[in-house]
Amino acid sequence: MSNFLWGAQGTEDLDRAILAFTAGEDVVLDRELFVYDLTATAAHVRGLSRIGILEEAESKRLCELLETLRQAFERGEFVLDEGFEDGHSAIEAFLTEHAGPLGERVHTGRSRNDQVAVAARLYMRDRLGAIARDCVAVARACLEQARRHEFAPMPGYTHLQRAVPSSVGLWMGGFAESFGEDVAFIAAVLELLDACPLGTAAGYGVNLPLDRDGVAAELDFARLQVNPLATQNARGKSELMALQAVYHPMQDLRRLAWDLSLYTTAEFAFVRLPARYTTGSSIMPNKSNPDVVELMRARVATVEGALHEIQSVLSLPSGYQRDLQLTKGPMIRGLQAAATSMAILPPLLDGLEFDTGRMRDAVSPDMFATDLALEIAASGVPFREAYRTVKEERASLADRDAVESLRQRTSPGAAGALRLDEIEARLDAVAAPFG
Amino acid sequence: MSNFLWGAQGTEDLDRAILAFTAGEDVVLDRELFVYDLTATAAHVRGLSRIGILEEAESKRLCELLETLRQAFERGEFVLDEGFEDGHSAIEAFLTEHAGPLGERVHTGRSRNDQVAVAARLYMRDRLGAIARDCVAVARACLEQARRHEFAPMPGYTHLQRAVPSSVGLWMGGFAESFGEDVAFIAAVLELLDACPLGTAAGYGVNLPLDRDGVAAELDFARLQVNPLATQNARGKSELMALQAVYHPMQDLRRLAWDLSLYTTAEFAFVRLPARYTTGSSIMPNKSNPDVVELMRARVATVEGALHEIQSVLSLPSGYQRDLQLTKGPMIRGLQAAATSMAILPPLLDGLEFDTGRMRDAVSPDMFATDLALEIAASGVPFREAYRTVKEERASLADRDAVESLRQRTSPGAAGALRLDEIEARLDAVAAPFG
Amino acid sequence: MSNFLWGAQGTEDLDRAILAFTAGEDVVLDRELFVYDLTATAAHVRGLSRIGILEEAESKRLCELLETLRQAFERGEFVLDEGFEDGHSAIEAFLTEHAGPLGERVHTGRSRNDQVAVAARLYMRDRLGAIARDCVAVARACLEQARRHEFAPMPGYTHLQRAVPSSVGLWMGGFAESFGEDVAFIAAVLELLDACPLGTAAGYGVNLPLDRDGVAAELDFARLQVNPLATQNARGKSELMALQAVYHPMQDLRRLAWDLSLYTTAEFAFVRLPARYTTGSSIMPNKSNPDVVELMRARVATVEGALHEIQSVLSLPSGYQRDLQLTKGPMIRGLQAAATSMAILPPLLDGLEFDTGRMRDAVSPDMFATDLALEIAASGVPFREAYRTVKEERASLADRDAVESLRQRTSPGAAGALRLDEIEARLDAVAAPFG
Amino acid sequence: MSNFLWGAQGTEDLDRAILAFTAGEDVVLDRELFVYDLTATAAHVRGLSRIGILEEAESKRLCELLETLRQAFERGEFVLDEGFEDGHSAIEAFLTEHAGPLGERVHTGRSRNDQVAVAARLYMRDRLGAIARDCVAVARACLEQARRHEFAPMPGYTHLQRAVPSSVGLWMGGFAESFGEDVAFIAAVLELLDACPLGTAAGYGVNLPLDRDGVAAELDFARLQVNPLATQNARGKSELMALQAVYHPMQDLRRLAWDLSLYTTAEFAFVRLPARYTTGSSIMPNKSNPDVVELMRARVATVEGALHEIQSVLSLPSGYQRDLQLTKGPMIRGLQAAATSMAILPPLLDGLEFDTGRMRDAVSPDMFATDLALEIAASGVPFREAYRTVKEERASLADRDAVESLRQRTSPGAAGALRLDEIEARLDAVAAPFG
Repeated sequence: MSNFLWGAQGTEDLDRAILAFTAGEDVVLDRELFVYDLTATAAHVRGLSRIGILEEAESKRLCELLETLRQAFERGEFVLDEGFEDGHSAIEAFLTEHAGPLGERVHTGRSRNDQVAVAARLYMRDRLGAIARDCVAVARACLEQARRHEFAPMPGYTHLQRAVPSSVGLWMGGFAESFGEDVAFIAAVLELLDACPLGTAAGYGVNLPLDRDGVAAELDFARLQVNPLATQNARGKSELMALQAVYHPMQDLRRLAWDLSLYTTAEFAFVRLPARYTTGSSIMPNKSNPDVVELMRARVATVEGALHEIQSVLSLPSGYQRDLQLTKGPMIRGLQAAATSMAILPPLLDGLEFDTGRMRDAVSPDMFATDLALEIAASGVPFREAYRTVKEERASLADRDAVESLRQRTSPGAAGALRLDEIEARLDAVAAPFG
Repeated sequence: MSNFLWGAQGTEDLDRAILAFTAGEDVVLDRELFVYDLTATAAHVRGLSRIGILEEAESKRLCELLETLRQAFERGEFVLDEGFEDGHSAIEAFLTEHAGPLGERVHTGRSRNDQVAVAARLYMRDRLGAIARDCVAVARACLEQARRHEFAPMPGYTHLQRAVPSSVGLWMGGFAESFGEDVAFIAAVLELLDACPLGTAAGYGVNLPLDRDGVAAELDFARLQVNPLATQNARGKSELMALQAVYHPMQDLRRLAWDLSLYTTAEFAFVRLPARYTTGSSIMPNKSNPDVVELMRARVATVEGALHEIQSVLSLPSGYQRDLQLTKGPMIRGLQAAATSMAILPPLLDGLEFDTGRMRDAVSPDMFATDLALEIAASGVPFREAYRTVKEERASLADRDAVESLRQRTSPGAAGALRLDEIEARLDAVAAPFG
Repeated sequence: MSNFLWGAQGTEDLDRAILAFTAGEDVVLDRELFVYDLTATAAHVRGLSRIGILEEAESKRLCELLETLRQAFERGEFVLDEGFEDGHSAIEAFLTEHAGPLGERVHTGRSRNDQVAVAARLYMRDRLGAIARDCVAVARACLEQARRHEFAPMPGYTHLQRAVPSSVGLWMGGFAESFGEDVAFIAAVLELLDACPLGTAAGYGVNLPLDRDGVAAELDFARLQVNPLATQNARGKSELMALQAVYHPMQDLRRLAWDLSLYTTAEFAFVRLPARYTTGSSIMPNKSNPDVVELMRARVATVEGALHEIQSVLSLPSGYQRDLQLTKGPMIRGLQAAATSMAILPPLLDGLEFDTGRMRDAVSPDMFATDLALEIAASGVPFREAYRTVKEERASLADRDAVESLRQRTSPGAAGALRLDEIEARLDAVAAPFG
Repeated sequence: MSNFLWGAQGTEDLDRAILAFTAGEDVVLDRELFVYDLTATAAHVRGLSRIGILEEAESKRLCELLETLRQAFERGEFVLDEGFEDGHSAIEAFLTEHAGPLGERVHTGRSRNDQVAVAARLYMRDRLGAIARDCVAVARACLEQARRHEFAPMPGYTHLQRAVPSSVGLWMGGFAESFGEDVAFIAAVLELLDACPLGTAAGYGVNLPLDRDGVAAELDFARLQVNPLATQNARGKSELMALQAVYHPMQDLRRLAWDLSLYTTAEFAFVRLPARYTTGSSIMPNKSNPDVVELMRARVATVEGALHEIQSVLSLPSGYQRDLQLTKGPMIRGLQAAATSMAILPPLLDGLEFDTGRMRDAVSPDMFATDLALEIAASGVPFREAYRTVKEERASLADRDAVESLRQRTSPGAAGALRLDEIEARLDAVAAPFG
């Protein structure tokens, strides 16, 4: 006995299983990268003509065909499906079908390695840009709510216990600042990724004087990834950087979603979600559920899983190894999770309704205790002693007014001095590269 | 300005985006679970008839329709696509279409929560069983190679440095034992998962005396998940257990694939892969590449990513929250990655060709140094002293014979005493539940 | 210029830095493993004497010295510190100091690889046993609270929204079942780990007929890890299994801690923690904070981090590589995190005070809607229609009594039929191996 | 029965266990942060005096004491041990001991939350700066080796198969570029972290007009973290950014270490490590092992584990929760792992010896196949056809000269056009902020 599970007659099935295992979901993933591959292929073709590998007419013909293919793909007339091994083969097949042997020459001086690397970079650049713009919109929506309700009192929680008076302005202003910082992180990663891998072939370059600088400029990259092996070894590393960047807005979203999840309970009841963001229950007629908010909270898991998946693949020596194919799926999955989450967040924020009366009532008198302690301390009493004094005499706190208390919180950034303009100015600055 | 990104005229697009965000890829994933959902639904229906909620004729009619649907689905006539919210709605829609109001009554006494939980358990039970059987086949293929080449010498490496004489028998026998242990782990997890969640509704049970015990027996579960909240809180936890189980064979596969990746280099050249497991290069005519082996090495990343993704979701209070929907995708993705990898592994092992001459030549004389040290030590000299002696006098080692040396390695399990029968006996024992 | 950062005069510093880098925190970690190493060393010594490598008197002398060392270590007289490279060297140094050359002979026929493997297994066996016993105590404490408050009504939440009537009995009984299952998982892993690695040397065995079976029996292992390479390759894999096992109670603890964190807010106010489990605030005199519960919630992160850390190390070919040293720290860190968390949980549960009045009041009339829908459905109306009826006519719900409603929830496991005895019987069964 | 495991007489032990659980290893970790805490405390004190909370003499006295404490700590005279709850309490205890009630007033207007946040930021700024400087040194060492061996041929591998001719210059130059990019990433994160959290108290500011801008400037921060809740919510997020930054050089190091691990095998034998970076074996007298390189390869696992551990903690609503204490340990552990690894890397690189003869011999004739295919393709033949031609006629390849072949690889970045100056210029630019 020696052919395990697959009998002699099963070898065709086995070949099919091996092929399916090897191809994976590659061609389906390549739908995301396809137009970027076409763009980069056209730039490569023009580069080849500049160094005399292709005649100008040949180059022109190929670029026209690539544009035709792009349009057919976008109109849904050209379908990238399991009939092709991947997007790269699909392009070559199309070109060869329409231009004969000339079509094959598009592959001169490059390999799939730099071809997929440049398509992935162009894709990431686009996706990160879109996500950054959504983060800007989110931050602006937060700022607007912060301004609308600048002095609306609400409890400030630590340990989920009511701690000190806070405000809707402080809460929403905080998220404006957080998402603004996320824009700055994305911008920094975009700058790191702003280097062109095309022209490095399989990690060792080629014996042709490729016009890499020209191709990079045409594709709007700021510089080259110079060294071919460094370029190859950046496979996965670049993808991780992109995911690290979007991890932060997703993590901030998780925190915001946690707040909304709590504040929409019957027990807190501080906030109502816009109706289009809630759903009913299949079994309980009395429910109106914050499903969207819960999925927003959970979606960072997809980004985390993707980060982990790529990290796990990367324990390898230098140079291309097929393992790296498995960096493509998680990268796309992670960026899509971030994109779809952030895109629908601004209108949710814009449509939040605050039950300001209930929020104000939740600012119970004992929450002024820290304020009083600090007032006593400001008069020269050691804080620890003031703290003890207050702990014993809470009676006097009942008369305090929550809004008045907010106005007295004058440390920069606190409820009485939110500095929303400063937060907005920083946001404008970090948003600038995203138009 | 206040409607961010989506203008007033864009609300329909927004609703569509929210719906797409909420549904995710759920209905596509449900294709995997659909037949299990149908099976469990039929069991639920018969349970309802046993407690008088449905007439026997009603129950019979519904079960027939469920069987009709199953057959249509398996023949590809009923397609589960984005027209449905998910598999559950698809079932109900089908039943209502064909049986009118009776169709709706199938949902009496359960919710989607226990419905998805039971379908997922039945799915995991099936997948884990199949993967376990493949692990058994892998272990048997290793054993067979170990027996074929029991005394074929090869270097034993530590730190990737040649260390002591080893054998193909020891190498292959080791993987037989490792994959055998993985079968035992899977069996243990299957026993833990062998409890029926159906009948717990949304985490709090219902006011009907459901025949849960009967339904569980019908679905071939050993016991109930008794408490509805514990059942609900096991969502994600069960999925993690299943993935933890398949992590181990996948990790062992990574190690085996590493060995094969090294041993097929020009520098080692110990092993040739079966031709159907290698591929050419798109740019380098001289290459024959071990792509399949590399993808096998990397595939554990998918399982790791899936584990991480689910772990990240589970930071929640008790009770159902929509976050848990995101446990379904990674669970299916992880189990499929394991299943497709393990299925094609036995013929690969079976077809490995060993360059036994080259392997034997690689057992260089200095590798007998430890043996000599131990021989000296056995005569009463402290090992550290023997070690120093040997380090200085290596000359005498050149005459040693590799096979002879293997035969002298008589510590149980070592090359001279592999105990392959003992490994096989243990394998037979742990394989027993998988027929 | 060519000696970077470390000038010529800095080579001693460099050697020190390299040594520190290589040793890491190994010797400190070995404090945890030291007594297990001593136990296994004694067994190895007796095994050597049984095959004639040591005289019986020599064996006896060495075992006495090992016992002396163990006592000195436990009394704090022998300190394992940076003066030693690791625990193994410390043992050998002690033996050589007191027994001269005989001391060195303890190392005959084994290497540090199987020495650390067996010590780690013995350590994990002990730790897992202790954690399992704590889980049993936790489950029993939950059961006791469930019985005390079997029919105390509280809201059953889904989406953190009040959904259907539930009870403290159901809530606490749920955790009893969950932690009981965790005991079963730990028991399963212990059985998988119940195989002795000692006698496999550096992964290839030795040329001595070691009495591995006798040594394994003496150390109370059920069987051998037979194959030396499989044994070596299980380094890290065993550690992962142990951490996978304790992940589950830690994750259940996270969920329980989330519940307690919510239920101790001013807004829910269902539960009061025992005073010894709360702390004050350094700045806010009014606070009494659930710090311990929050740390319990977060502690699973240590186990997750440890799992990830080890997984990341394991992408390696067969055979020992120094990378594997880095599996020791996370394994110990993860098990300690679990042990210290679970140990203090039973008295916390035992001391919980429930504000049953407030809990009952939170069961608002609309929560009976599902019950009513099911009652209508039970009379033959399709559930979807009953659902719609109830949604419109909620008036009739105000008179319902919460306790009465609980008693009517008769599906097995629900509030009216908790089956605590069945949960307890299963707990007794899975707890049996832990005395 | 109701007090589980801890009998009535055990309550003191229980209290001790709770305290130990709560404190964790906090005070030990604070040794790393202590001097930064002292620096920030002094800045806070001077800020208080600028707004009139402290007299100038009081401020001066406190700052002198803080300086005294710093010196005592650095000389080892003041030991931060379990006698203190944490570093913060230790400072206050010292000040109160020496300045009475004045000492307590240092805590006015801040909480432990912003105190630990600012100390952590200062610590991360320092550590990241040091690691960046080490990365620059690593990149320069790689560049130097690349220049020394610019045209030394070696095989270029894909799939670990010999693919095309490459050079030591290309290999080493690649790592110069990779580590240079890592410097740029660290610099970007440093800019994101360059905002001062001090003065935000427990997440809601205080009712004192703190001079936050002045304090930030004094601590050399470029701007404020304005909003107190955003500041609080950045706990863990900042730590993740720091670890994300050092992940990249550590991952590049893993890849380099993999190369070295392979290239030092007997089978490849391309490279010899400096003697001080190798170690002997405890059992095998013939071995000289690359332990340091293996530990370098594995050390990224510590950073990954730390990233994961913090990510796992962060699923929380807004505001401080004690969970966040668990972000401190992994952050410090991860940065230390990176710092100790990178610090000893430059001399290792500097001391590498290449067996250039053996490397050149490994460039086998069939590796020129791609070159030939491209030459044919350059003459107008479609690449796929050229590829097929070459595959059939390999005979002509035997005469090619490896060095000549390298010189012909003229695509920018390839072996014949390495552009080391361009890589160095970019390195100089990104290294500039680290002086």
